[in-house]
Amino acid sequence: MDFTEKLTNARRRNKSLLCVGLDPDPEQLPDKVGVYQFNEAIIDATADLVCAYKLNLAFYEALNDEGLDALKRTIKHIPDDIPVIGDAKRGDIANTAKAYARAVFANLGCDATTVNPYMGFDSVEPFIEYADKGIFILCRTSNAGALDFQSLRCETDNGYRPLFEVVALKASQWNTHGNIGLVVGATYPEELRLLRQNYPDMPFLIPGIGAQGGELALATRYGVNSKGEKAIINSSRQIIYASRGKDFAQAARDAATSLRDQINYFLSTPAL
Amino acid sequence: MDFTEKLTNARRRNKSLLCVGLDPDPEQLPDKVGVYQFNEAIIDATADLVCAYKLNLAFYEALNDEGLDALKRTIKHIPDDIPVIGDAKRGDIANTAKAYARAVFANLGCDATTVNPYMGFDSVEPFIEYADKGIFILCRTSNAGALDFQSLRCETDNGYRPLFEVVALKASQWNTHGNIGLVVGATYPEELRLLRQNYPDMPFLIPGIGAQGGELALATRYGVNSKGEKAIINSSRQIIYASRGKDFAQAARDAATSLRDQINYFLSTPAL
Repeated sequence: MDFTEKLTNARRRNKSLLCVGLDPDPEQLPDKVGVYQFNEAIIDATADLVCAYKLNLAFYEALNDEGLDALKRTIKHIPDDIPVIGDAKRGDIANTAKAYARAVFANLGCDATTVNPYMGFDSVEPFIEYADKGIFILCRTSNAGALDFQSLRCETDNGYRPLFEVVALKASQWNTHGNIGLVVGATYPEELRLLRQNYPDMPFLIPGIGAQGGELALATRYGVNSKGEKAIINSSRQIIYASRGKDFAQAARDAATSLRDQINYFLSTPAL
Repeated sequence: MDFTEKLTNARRRNKSLLCVGLDPDPEQLPDKVGVYQFNEAIIDATADLVCAYKLNLAFYEALNDEGLDALKRTIKHIPDDIPVIGDAKRGDIANTAKAYARAVFANLGCDATTVNPYMGFDSVEPFIEYADKGIFILCRTSNAGALDFQSLRCETDNGYRPLFEVVALKASQWNTHGNIGLVVGATYPEELRLLRQNYPDMPFLIPGIGAQGGELALATRYGVNSKGEKAIINSSRQIIYASRGKDFAQAARDAATSLRDQINYFLSTPAL
C-alpha cells in the first residue's frame, strides 16, 4: 500500500491526526529500559491512537550500533497499516541522493521521509522517484533559525516572496507523482494558514507543538484541508516522556489520547 | 590537533590541495574487493598525496551494517595526521543537531563535517561548538539544482544579493571559533572567485571537478587564498575508479599524483 493510502486509512481508522515522534534520548529514558524496549512499549500503547510514527534518524545514529539496531527493530515492530516517516532531512547531489533514498526506503523500509531543498531539484528527484513513498520537503521549519534564511524576500516572477514560499511553489511543480508534502512548523501559524490556502491537497507534516511552543488549536485549524485531513501533527517529548517511571507506556497512552482528542475538538469547533 | 592545523600541516607536507573522496559504490568496485578493503588500498596508495580525505556518509548508509562497519574501519585506517571530512550535510533543530554532531564527531571521529544552512543558526550551532572541528556550510553547491534556490535574489541591508551570498555572509558572522568554512562547487567558478574575494581566510571545500565538469584551473586559481592555501579540491570518481582491474590502487595513485601536480602547476602559473 502506498504512503498516501496508508496515511489516510490510519487517520480514519484511528480518528487521529497525531503522529508520535519516536526520538529516544538515553538520558531521558526510564531506568533500565533500553531504546528498543522503550519504543516497543510506546508503540504497543499508542498504535490505535496515531496516524503515523516519525523516527528522527539522528537519535539512533548518535547511539552507534545499538541505535541502528534499535531503529531497524522499531520500524519492523510498527504495525504494517501505520505509516513510518523516517525523518532524515537529507539533501545531496543526484548520485548521492540516490544512495540516501535507497537507505531510507529500501534498506530501512520507511514509508516516507523528509528532505532538505537547499540543493535544488536534482537533490530531491531520487526520492520523488519512489512514487509509492511520501516526500516531505522542509519548507517553514519550526525552529527559531527558520527566520535566518526561510524568511528572506526573494525575487520571483510574481514579485518578492519569502524563500519558504518559493520552496513550496517549486515543490508543487515537482509533484508529478502526487507524493510530495511540506514540513511546516506549528510555531509559525500564519505561514501555515497561508501555505494551506495555496496548497489545499498537499500533506503537511507539522512539528513544533508542545516543547517547541506551537499552539495546537492553530496548528490543527490551519493545518488541515477542507475535509479535515492532510495534516500530520507531530509530538515527541510531550508523549514519550510523559512519565519516567514504570508507568511510562500508560502515561504515553494517556498523553497521546489527550492530544488526539484535543486535536479532534479543535477540528470540530470553528475558530472564533 | 585541531582540524585547521591538521589540514595546514597535511597540505604543506604533501604539497597538495587534493582531497580524495572515498565514496565506494559496490557496483563499481573491482571484482571480489570489499568496501573496506578497497578504501584501505586507496588510502595506502594516496596518503602522501592528499591534504584530506572526504567520506560521503550516504554511500556507507546505503550498505547497511557492512557499510557502517567499513565507514568506521576506514576512518580508523586514515593516518592521524590527515584530516577526515565526514560529508553528511546534516541540518536539524537544535537538540537533534546536537545528536548529529555527536554522531559525526564523537562517535565516528571525523575532523570536519558538512552542514546544510536552510534551517538557520540553531541548526548549525551545535556543530560549531566543537571548536576543534571544521564545519563546512553548504553555500554554492556543485550540482545543476544549485540554481533553483541558491541563485534567488534576496533582499538584504545592502540591496539584493543571491541566496548563497547571504549564506556566506551569515556563516562569516557565526564564525566566532574560526572553524567555519564553505562548500563552493568548482562548477560555478565566478561565484567561487567572488566568495574568495569576500572571505580571504575561510577554508573552501570545492567539489565538482572531473565527473561533474568543473574546470580545474579555475577551481585552483579562484579557490585558494593569497598564500595558495585554504582550498580543498575534492575528487572522487576520477581517482578511486581510475581502474577496475587488480591495479586499481596503483591507478588511483597515478590519478591522484597527476591531479595534485596539475593543481600545483595551475597554482604556480598565473591565469592569462
